Amino acid sequence: MVLSPSIVILLSFVVYQYFTRRQYISEDEFQGYIIHDSINITSSKNESHIINDVVYDYEYGWDFQRSNQENMIKIDELIDNISPEQINQKFIIHKYINETNLYHREKATFLILCRNSDLIDILETIQNVEDRFNKNFHYDYTFLNDEKFTNEFIYLISSFIPFGTINFGSIPAEHWEIPQFIDLDRFDLALNQDMRDIVYGDSISYRKMCRFFSGFFYKHELVKPYQYYWRIEPGIKLYCDINYDVFEFMHSNHKKYGFTLTMFEYENTIPSLWSDFQQFITMYDDDENQYNSNELMKLIQNQSSNTYNLCHFWTNFEIGDFSLFTSDAYEKLFTFFDYKGGFFYERWGDAPIHSLAIAISLKKSDLHWFGDIGYYHKPYLQCPKSSLMFINNKCSCNQDDDFSFTDLSCTNHFLNVINGL
Amino acid sequence: MVLSPSIVILLSFVVYQYFTRRQYISEDEFQGYIIHDSINITSSKNESHIINDVVYDYEYGWDFQRSNQENMIKIDELIDNISPEQINQKFIIHKYINETNLYHREKATFLILCRNSDLIDILETIQNVEDRFNKNFHYDYTFLNDEKFTNEFIYLISSFIPFGTINFGSIPAEHWEIPQFIDLDRFDLALNQDMRDIVYGDSISYRKMCRFFSGFFYKHELVKPYQYYWRIEPGIKLYCDINYDVFEFMHSNHKKYGFTLTMFEYENTIPSLWSDFQQFITMYDDDENQYNSNELMKLIQNQSSNTYNLCHFWTNFEIGDFSLFTSDAYEKLFTFFDYKGGFFYERWGDAPIHSLAIAISLKKSDLHWFGDIGYYHKPYLQCPKSSLMFINNKCSCNQDDDFSFTDLSCTNHFLNVINGL
Repeated sequence: MVLSPSIVILLSFVVYQYFTRRQYISEDEFQGYIIHDSINITSSKNESHIINDVVYDYEYGWDFQRSNQENMIKIDELIDNISPEQINQKFIIHKYINETNLYHREKATFLILCRNSDLIDILETIQNVEDRFNKNFHYDYTFLNDEKFTNEFIYLISSFIPFGTINFGSIPAEHWEIPQFIDLDRFDLALNQDMRDIVYGDSISYRKMCRFFSGFFYKHELVKPYQYYWRIEPGIKLYCDINYDVFEFMHSNHKKYGFTLTMFEYENTIPSLWSDFQQFITMYDDDENQYNSNELMKLIQNQSSNTYNLCHFWTNFEIGDFSLFTSDAYEKLFTFFDYKGGFFYERWGDAPIHSLAIAISLKKSDLHWFGDIGYYHKPYLQCPKSSLMFINNKCSCNQDDDFSFTDLSCTNHFLNVINGL
Repeated sequence: MVLSPSIVILLSFVVYQYFTRRQYISEDEFQGYIIHDSINITSSKNESHIINDVVYDYEYGWDFQRSNQENMIKIDELIDNISPEQINQKFIIHKYINETNLYHREKATFLILCRNSDLIDILETIQNVEDRFNKNFHYDYTFLNDEKFTNEFIYLISSFIPFGTINFGSIPAEHWEIPQFIDLDRFDLALNQDMRDIVYGDSISYRKMCRFFSGFFYKHELVKPYQYYWRIEPGIKLYCDINYDVFEFMHSNHKKYGFTLTMFEYENTIPSLWSDFQQFITMYDDDENQYNSNELMKLIQNQSSNTYNLCHFWTNFEIGDFSLFTSDAYEKLFTFFDYKGGFFYERWGDAPIHSLAIAISLKKSDLHWFGDIGYYHKPYLQCPKSSLMFINNKCSCNQDDDFSFTDLSCTNHFLNVINGL
């Protein structure tokens, strides 16, 4: 058989079209999308959280029919067009899903605080989160950074995530930087002398991060549309299939806070946290509606003495309802702690702050231990102990390395309290 | 609304049924199967490769409708019923796929030599291989061991792999143990003196493994049904989506041997390999039909001198056609090398053996470099250098850590030879 040149050219074109399309998305997935002919950009000013700087709001409709290289150029142009005075970056990419085919999702997002240099770790983490959970549910992602995300970061991450909305935002300076009321000489003394030898005791950025996760992550403009978040750190690993929608589980079961690992805080990072906490309780204990102080105090309080047992939820994993933090009760507690200055003069972590707040704000029934989630954050692992759970969820972790039920973990104690034992 | 007790019980039953079924397989996948009502076992003797021992041949039809716990008991019973004299274990589990829905697969299998103690590493590796490639293609797996696999190993691995045939086999002693013609005193001298300080120079099991992968892996009874294999080691990692059928690619393009990483062999592991090889070539060079000695000799031979350039394919990754090894030409070469004793008196790896054989047996067009496969085997990584490839295949490796084009790799040289440069 001899093929005429025109047939060869036609065939080549068809094959080329097929492969260039196939590069991005499989046939079945493809049909679930509205394909946009052009890039849809809306630009608006939003000054609600910003005083001195302008915020540009980019809404970007991904165009699957263009080649990736073309898209990259478009994104480059978009990002480069942001004027230099735009400090508070906000960049949103929608990978539209045909509403009729869309799985009913809760208003929920993954929440990832990271740096541009975390890019490769995050790619591996997203690959893992998609494989073990999100390929079936297509929840949104929100990336926050104290600096601007680079074009490369935004482009690669948004190429990687196949569905939904991907939010990239910089953190407003007033949510990150050292507040005015901090005595810089006293902070310098803590940093270079008093706290120098404790874990992260000499780090400024770690302190900013802990304060951000204590009082600001839930205030970021980009998370306003969501009710739930799942906090993810670059480099974590999920070991088991999660075959149900964890956010739907939170909703149906009226859960406010889901956790995996727990542990004891280093006492020398929080010398005055407990006495400050006692002072707060004394001041506000009369307000019965705000704090359910009895039901979960056992989580954190030694029974024989009024002291902190140092137990906390390991907050690098959290599946939470933002309403826990956006309440007046939490805001009052955070503001009180913030003015005490312990985030800087000591080295308070967001883990004990969240844990103390949960102990006085929530009920037993608000909490959920995700014991079925195989979770690793260096250097600790939660690996389901039940063989049936291990097999049904196709876990690939080593049960012998599970940290949850070791002497260094509070999980057993927490479960006893939550289950009323 | 008040529910009567009988409705509650009925609802509970429906919900229970739904969840117990959903544990194993999603609805779409489920419909692709023939569900067997009972476990299908055939038992037969097969003495073709065994002289003194009986082989039991178990064919096990997986029953998705039973609970995993029930299946576990069944497998325990099955395995326990194997009589003590059965040294050469052969255990085959078929997870039947409805032929009408079945993707057309090549006759191909993953090939994994491992120990029972590798179980957790293998679970993680299979999870990764399924995620990045096999979830779309459902190729079979073959596990080989110099000992018997434990019930736990067989049960967990076969629970993990959702589709296809899973073969578990022990290696016949005559494919693994030190052959009769080896002078044990001379071997002892190599092990404890001459080769003691080189990599794995003091290891007996490593030598057995190298010899097995040089001359026996393709002779195992369980791989006889297959034309292609993909060698996988416990603990490797694939970093990029492989969106096409690599075995179909091998077939369509008439490829015999696919590789990723290449490197230089440690010279002190193979002091006499090259001169033995020269002797072999001199003896058999007149047979033009068996060896295409000119076309690929540049892969391994220094141009200025008749010496080995030490380059080899890193054989922990191979996608190969068994016919390369089952040929008379290869058997002649292996037998020649085997009788030289270098697997034991020195510490010849299967990598240089395969590489020398390929150089004299294959043509340029028989070889394929899988440059699009992100592959890690401790401590080396292949990570696609092309940005477009990296993005389209959703790689999560760090391109800066790629080993392929460093000075310690032969990949550039190999590609020049293969491409005729």
